[in-house]
Amino acid sequence: MHGLMMDRPLLIKRLLWRAEHVFGDKQVISRDGSGYHTYTYAELGSRVRRLAGALAALGVAPGDRVATLAWNTHRHLECYFAVPGMGAILHTANHRLSEDQLAYTMDHARDRVVLVEPDLVPLLESIADRLPLVHSYVVLGKVPADTTLSPVFDYEDLLAHAAAVELPELDEYAAAGLCYTSGTTGDPKGVLYSHRSTVLHTLALCVKGSAEVAEDDTYLVVTPMSHVNAWGTPYACALQGTTLVLPGTHPRPEDLLRIIHDQRPNVMVAAVTVGTMLRDAHNSTGRRYHLDSLQRLWLGGQAPPAALTEWWQQNNGTVVVNGWGMTETSPIATFSPDVSSQGKPLPLVEMRITDEAGTELPWDGKSVGELEVCTPWAAREYLDDPRSVDSFREGWLRTGDVSVFTPDGSMALKDRSKDLIKSGGEWISSVDLENALMAHPMVHEAVVIAIPDETWLERPLACVEAQGSVTEEELRNHLQARFAKYWVPEHIVFVRRIPKTSVGKFDKKQLRARYLECGLPGISP
Amino acid sequence: MHGLMMDRPLLIKRLLWRAEHVFGDKQVISRDGSGYHTYTYAELGSRVRRLAGALAALGVAPGDRVATLAWNTHRHLECYFAVPGMGAILHTANHRLSEDQLAYTMDHARDRVVLVEPDLVPLLESIADRLPLVHSYVVLGKVPADTTLSPVFDYEDLLAHAAAVELPELDEYAAAGLCYTSGTTGDPKGVLYSHRSTVLHTLALCVKGSAEVAEDDTYLVVTPMSHVNAWGTPYACALQGTTLVLPGTHPRPEDLLRIIHDQRPNVMVAAVTVGTMLRDAHNSTGRRYHLDSLQRLWLGGQAPPAALTEWWQQNNGTVVVNGWGMTETSPIATFSPDVSSQGKPLPLVEMRITDEAGTELPWDGKSVGELEVCTPWAAREYLDDPRSVDSFREGWLRTGDVSVFTPDGSMALKDRSKDLIKSGGEWISSVDLENALMAHPMVHEAVVIAIPDETWLERPLACVEAQGSVTEEELRNHLQARFAKYWVPEHIVFVRRIPKTSVGKFDKKQLRARYLECGLPGISP
Repeated sequence: MHGLMMDRPLLIKRLLWRAEHVFGDKQVISRDGSGYHTYTYAELGSRVRRLAGALAALGVAPGDRVATLAWNTHRHLECYFAVPGMGAILHTANHRLSEDQLAYTMDHARDRVVLVEPDLVPLLESIADRLPLVHSYVVLGKVPADTTLSPVFDYEDLLAHAAAVELPELDEYAAAGLCYTSGTTGDPKGVLYSHRSTVLHTLALCVKGSAEVAEDDTYLVVTPMSHVNAWGTPYACALQGTTLVLPGTHPRPEDLLRIIHDQRPNVMVAAVTVGTMLRDAHNSTGRRYHLDSLQRLWLGGQAPPAALTEWWQQNNGTVVVNGWGMTETSPIATFSPDVSSQGKPLPLVEMRITDEAGTELPWDGKSVGELEVCTPWAAREYLDDPRSVDSFREGWLRTGDVSVFTPDGSMALKDRSKDLIKSGGEWISSVDLENALMAHPMVHEAVVIAIPDETWLERPLACVEAQGSVTEEELRNHLQARFAKYWVPEHIVFVRRIPKTSVGKFDKKQLRARYLECGLPGISP
Repeated sequence: MHGLMMDRPLLIKRLLWRAEHVFGDKQVISRDGSGYHTYTYAELGSRVRRLAGALAALGVAPGDRVATLAWNTHRHLECYFAVPGMGAILHTANHRLSEDQLAYTMDHARDRVVLVEPDLVPLLESIADRLPLVHSYVVLGKVPADTTLSPVFDYEDLLAHAAAVELPELDEYAAAGLCYTSGTTGDPKGVLYSHRSTVLHTLALCVKGSAEVAEDDTYLVVTPMSHVNAWGTPYACALQGTTLVLPGTHPRPEDLLRIIHDQRPNVMVAAVTVGTMLRDAHNSTGRRYHLDSLQRLWLGGQAPPAALTEWWQQNNGTVVVNGWGMTETSPIATFSPDVSSQGKPLPLVEMRITDEAGTELPWDGKSVGELEVCTPWAAREYLDDPRSVDSFREGWLRTGDVSVFTPDGSMALKDRSKDLIKSGGEWISSVDLENALMAHPMVHEAVVIAIPDETWLERPLACVEAQGSVTEEELRNHLQARFAKYWVPEHIVFVRRIPKTSVGKFDKKQLRARYLECGLPGISP
């Protein structure tokens, strides 16, 4: 027998209802050149309903894919609510992908309308001939006079002339958003979020012990809104009436310093590399900007290195927090109030670790296995992609991450399974080696990859971006004090810059390929 | 098109999964006579699976109603997870109802099995002949030798011999719990919760700005588990790994003081009257027990009077918080970190106020209207009850409460619509008068009801339980300083004790009936 409770679907528009009704006066602040664009959640709601009307007038129907190619701005935020709110699907295309990858994703998604930032128009023009299904382009600002996009519309013009429409009731399982993995191997894979998964993920971000997004916070969201919904923070901020600060078009490190100085956010959400860049920019600008409002720095994409965490704590009193997740998990699945681990599974997130035979391993602080996840906000398959079979097993998502759980339910990431180094029958964690290297004062960034070895099958190779004078031997001594002897890499090479992926992670795939093709400074494959 | 996310139903067993796996070592502490019974969430989980096995062996099938007639104990907590977990429906029968009402609810619910506390066996025996569908009685402790209940089983015996069963996957809309309203008018009405509504309500209790149930808290749950799931706190504590302290069989005020002294909870959840009783008991026991661990006192059932709030703040440093809800809303729908109002709607709770014609009124801090609610954890109808038509309209629950919203989304309760006094065309709030009276140092408790009046249609009548020497005139002067002249009651009567309902609220229905029948001290109808 069913319960007799209201059959009230979990829809993204419910988040907006609370922003408008309960927190209507709270602000959304978007960097706009050297100034700021500011309005309230009440105004957001009214513009969302006009955007929904404008898109309907352009012919957008329920189920249609509408792409954004955009920065973190108030207009992008409007798309976050209007597109799924009207029953269409928001594909947040990632302009940091290669042109080929971007074209692949937009074609694969079958995008019909693209909302594009003025400065990204040239990028879109260069792939437009590969997007035969797109029937309308909308520029999120001034339309460049010489654009070849056609037909092309001015976003503000559309809104000015649009009739507001009420967002309809929908099935909560309806698709709401589409995001592609950043493609560390092969073509990007599409993850199709539903209203239900988005709402549940949003709630989980606001729970005590999780990110705890709260009414009194001011969030600076640097994590791109083009990447896994900026970890869901825009939705959580709206739900909780959190003041939301968006860094606008192409923010440089000094822009971010200025925003922090001006808007005094108490929380910043960003990739680990942004935490590093801001530290460096703060030092190189003579500490001109005040960063003391920042109580919490939520860094993601990879485990924050201890040296970076300590700098923020000691120099600015900022606590670095982190979690774990992936595009396939919306993305947040664990959260930690510090960096001692990746934290505990959020409510409704079930996890296990398994060995190579698929046997579940104990949470004993020692057993290392592949992390598997089951939650209403994890993907069950990729969109139209035969590779799904490799990642999903018996209802669980196989993450490809290798981790260990302590008995108190805290998860520590050891590696990506493909980055784990198997040397002479023993596992070596590239992440642990990288963190130890980056804790050395003369190391700016470091990445460790596996290279083939005749004797040991694989051996670690460390690539180091130094920030002062340091020798291979000094670094080896530094590591020898911390790890078993067989962990210490024979080869440590100094590189000018460590390659990064489109979302700012160390690009180990590129390093491995470069090594195998032509070697690295001082050593050949 | 549907999203491609895991189809993972929201089930009560997911809450237990987190308690067991992430917080397996955290404790559940139940008062047991003058001592305590203590075990971990891991042990809770293992006993839950055995209880499910035992109930299945007794013949309990999915959809069956299983009643508890029980105090707040670890065994009752086991029923909270095992009964819905196995697909049956937990009817938490309320032993504070009159015998007739209790028999009515258990017959109406079609209960098949009753789990009964040893000291409540006589009560159950007295109505057992009115429960023809019950096929098994289980005593949550020692079976009284002379009981007439039959067949009757010993709970611990059943568990000792039961096979543990894994809790099955279920439809999230399946009924999970059944609770009856406390029946301030007519027979109690049944509200049938689903797994989905219970899980969503639980999440909402843990969100920042809501009750914020957290891992580091120790909750003393005095609110009866027989009444709206103790406001959902046992489920929220399990989900968050909160240390849970349960006051056991028939706790007296001094028992509660001792529990607070011994277990040092930082949060207590209780009816407003319990807050009053504890204050009085603390004073009368010479402040022998240390209550300083209590940071937060969550009082409900009615708006906490200011005098009580101040006492807790000034004498113990305890912040009184409150919310608003009813059996029909699971129950929590708003929450406030203080007592300045009943707080803001929780995430996913939509509210509006309407006038008598059903027109929506603005949130302007002035307009007073009937509160209506829409949320996935509100009832859409009562179980098998023709009175449903009066309470539900166009998908909204009409609460019968009258309230006002400020523009920042905070709701202040003015009255029950049937308790509001309409005098000479003007509204008078009985709640406001009661709070003002109870702020007087010589007033212990006060209740205000409407009585018929030839000139004004209705006039307020104040019934006061004094705690010292005070006159009618002194109280009138006290009120005159605070309210418009027409608000001040002509009649103030002193009563020995104010009658309470089964859940500790002022019983205005009884007072009104008593007045209309035979008058009150000093005045006749």
